[in-house]
Amino acid sequence: MGRTKLSDIAKALELSKTTISKVLNGYPDVNALTRKRVLDYIKEVGFEANTQASFLRTKETKTVALILPQISHDFFNSILEGMLKIAQQTEYTFYVACSNESYELETKLISKFLKRNVDAIFLSISRETRNFDHLRAIHEEGKILVLYDKIEKTIDCPKIIIDDRKASFTATEHLIKKGCRKILHFRGGFLPQISIDRYLGYRDALDKYDIPFDKERIFICENANEKDGFFAAKKALESGIDFDGLFTISDLLAIGAIQFFKKNKIQVPEDISVVGFSNWKLSSFTYPTITTVDQPGNLMGEKIFQTFLTEKSLKKQGLDPENREIKLPSKLIIRESS
Amino acid sequence: MGRTKLSDIAKALELSKTTISKVLNGYPDVNALTRKRVLDYIKEVGFEANTQASFLRTKETKTVALILPQISHDFFNSILEGMLKIAQQTEYTFYVACSNESYELETKLISKFLKRNVDAIFLSISRETRNFDHLRAIHEEGKILVLYDKIEKTIDCPKIIIDDRKASFTATEHLIKKGCRKILHFRGGFLPQISIDRYLGYRDALDKYDIPFDKERIFICENANEKDGFFAAKKALESGIDFDGLFTISDLLAIGAIQFFKKNKIQVPEDISVVGFSNWKLSSFTYPTITTVDQPGNLMGEKIFQTFLTEKSLKKQGLDPENREIKLPSKLIIRESS
Repeated sequence: MGRTKLSDIAKALELSKTTISKVLNGYPDVNALTRKRVLDYIKEVGFEANTQASFLRTKETKTVALILPQISHDFFNSILEGMLKIAQQTEYTFYVACSNESYELETKLISKFLKRNVDAIFLSISRETRNFDHLRAIHEEGKILVLYDKIEKTIDCPKIIIDDRKASFTATEHLIKKGCRKILHFRGGFLPQISIDRYLGYRDALDKYDIPFDKERIFICENANEKDGFFAAKKALESGIDFDGLFTISDLLAIGAIQFFKKNKIQVPEDISVVGFSNWKLSSFTYPTITTVDQPGNLMGEKIFQTFLTEKSLKKQGLDPENREIKLPSKLIIRESS
Repeated sequence: MGRTKLSDIAKALELSKTTISKVLNGYPDVNALTRKRVLDYIKEVGFEANTQASFLRTKETKTVALILPQISHDFFNSILEGMLKIAQQTEYTFYVACSNESYELETKLISKFLKRNVDAIFLSISRETRNFDHLRAIHEEGKILVLYDKIEKTIDCPKIIIDDRKASFTATEHLIKKGCRKILHFRGGFLPQISIDRYLGYRDALDKYDIPFDKERIFICENANEKDGFFAAKKALESGIDFDGLFTISDLLAIGAIQFFKKNKIQVPEDISVVGFSNWKLSSFTYPTITTVDQPGNLMGEKIFQTFLTEKSLKKQGLDPENREIKLPSKLIIRESS
C-alpha cells in the first residue's frame, strides 16, 4: 500500500478516520470487533511497516510501570535498584507502585496504569491473586506485560524468575551433605509458583539421596516473616517430630526459627542446621550468620527492562508476545548456621 | 474580568493565544520576560480565580516524582512505602527515580520530570550536590518542590526532616548517662545538613554535661557504610586516643565499628558503648543488638505527600510556596550495645 493514508483505510471499512487512528494508537475505547476488522484489513492489504511504525511511534509514552508486591523487602528493592540503574538514563520514566500483596489493589493499579497509557507493566503477582483477567486486559489494550519472580504460568508473556527449584535442591542437598536426614521445610502458601518450585526442589533433593519424605516435616508460613518462623519452629517442637535440619523459603523465617531455637536451648548449627533463602543483608549480621540462597535482584531488574525492549521490537514487527521463561542463576552462600 | 477569554488577554498584550495558553498551562518553552508580562497582566486586571482554576485543572497531570538518593536503604524504602500507602489509592501516580547520590544524575532526572510536566517533585538532595540551580528551575516552571531528609536551607520550599540535632543530643546524652566521658563521633561529610545537625547535637550534649570537646574524637565517614565504620574504628584505635563511647550517624557505621572492636577484643558494651542512627531492621538482629535512633520513615512519606497537597491548594490561590520546616520526632531505641 506504500503511502497509505488513514482516510484510505477509513473509506474501505466505512469507519471514521478517528476510529482507525484510535485502533492504530491502541486506545481502549474501540469496540473489540471493530478493532479486529481494522487490524485484519491492515494485515490483508499488507500495510507498510514504515507507515505503521510512525503510528506506533506516536502511541508510545516512554513510560513503564513497575508493580512490587512489597517495598520494605531487600529482594524487591534490589530489583527496583537494578532496573533504575540501567534504565533511568534512557528516555524512559518509571511509575512505581506497591500492591501490598493485595489482589484488589493490584487490579486497581493496573487499570490506573492502563489509563495512563504506559508502554509496559512489570508485575510480580500478589500473594492474594487467584484470578488473572486483569493481566489479560494488559494484552487486550496492546500493552506489554513482563512477569517476574511471582509469576502465573498460564499467562502468555515473558517471565523472569530465579531457578527456584534448582536453588532449593542445592540448599537442601547442602543440608544432606552436612549429615542432616530429618529436614524440616518451612514453605509458603499453596499457590505462588515460587512456593511450589521451592517445595519441589526440597523434594528432589530428598529423592536423590533416598531420604523418605515425611509431610509432618512441612510447615506452611503464609507471610514468610520472623513471626511465622518462630511459630512454625514452636509447632515443630511441640509436634514431637525429630529434626536435624531446616530449609526455609525466606531469611526472615530462618531468623524467627533460630530465635525460637535459642530460647529453647536448641543449638544452631550443632543441634540443627538452618538454611534460609534470599540473602537479605541482615542474614550476614545475625548470630549465627545464616546460610542462604543469593537471588540476583539487580540482575533481575536489568533483565526485566531488557526483555521489555525485546518485546517492544517484536511488537513493532507485529509479532505476538514471547511466552518464555528466563531463569536466572542463584548461588548458595554458606555461613555459620549450617 | 469575569468570563475573560484567552483572546482578550492575547489582544491586550499583542501576543498569540497559544503563548497565553502556554503560560497559563505552565509550559516551559515561553520566554521568561513574556511569561512575566502575561502573569503580571492577569494579576493587574484581577483575572477571576474560577477561570484560572479551570486552566490550572487542565495543567495538572496528577503525576508526582519521588527522587531517592539511594534505593537499597531501609530509611528511604520506608519513606517510599509510607508515601505509596496513603497516596497510591488517590488519583495520583508516582514516578520514582534514584540519583545514586550523583549531582549529574539528579539534575538529569529533574529536567526529565519537568518535561513530563509532573505536578511536583519530592527530593532528598544527593551527597554530591553543591549547586542548587536545578531546584530553582522547579519553581520557575511553576511546579511544587518538597525537600525531605537531605535538604538545602537556602531553597524556598517546604522541608520535611527529622529533628536530627535533638535526636543526636538524646543519643549522646544516653551514652553520658551510661557513664561515658570519652565519646567518639563518626560523622558524615561537611555539607549535608543532617550531618551538620547530628554533629551539633553531639556537641550540645557534651556542653550540657560539661564534657570538653576534643576534635581528635571526630572521624569523617563519607559513605556511612560498614567499611567506613570499620576503618574509622581502626583509625581511632591506632591514634592512641582513649574512648569509652561511640555515637555514629548510621547503623551500618556502628556495625562496621563493632566488627572491628570484636576483632580486637574490645568488648561492646563493656569496654565501649555504641549508639547508631536510623533503626535499620538489621540493627535488631546483630550481636550485640544495636542501640539506635528510630527515624519515622513511613510517617515522613505520608507528610511529604500531605505537604504537597497543602502547597497545591496554596498555589491555586496564587500564594507562594511555604518556606517551612516540618520536624518529625524520633525515638531512641535502647538495645544491648550500650
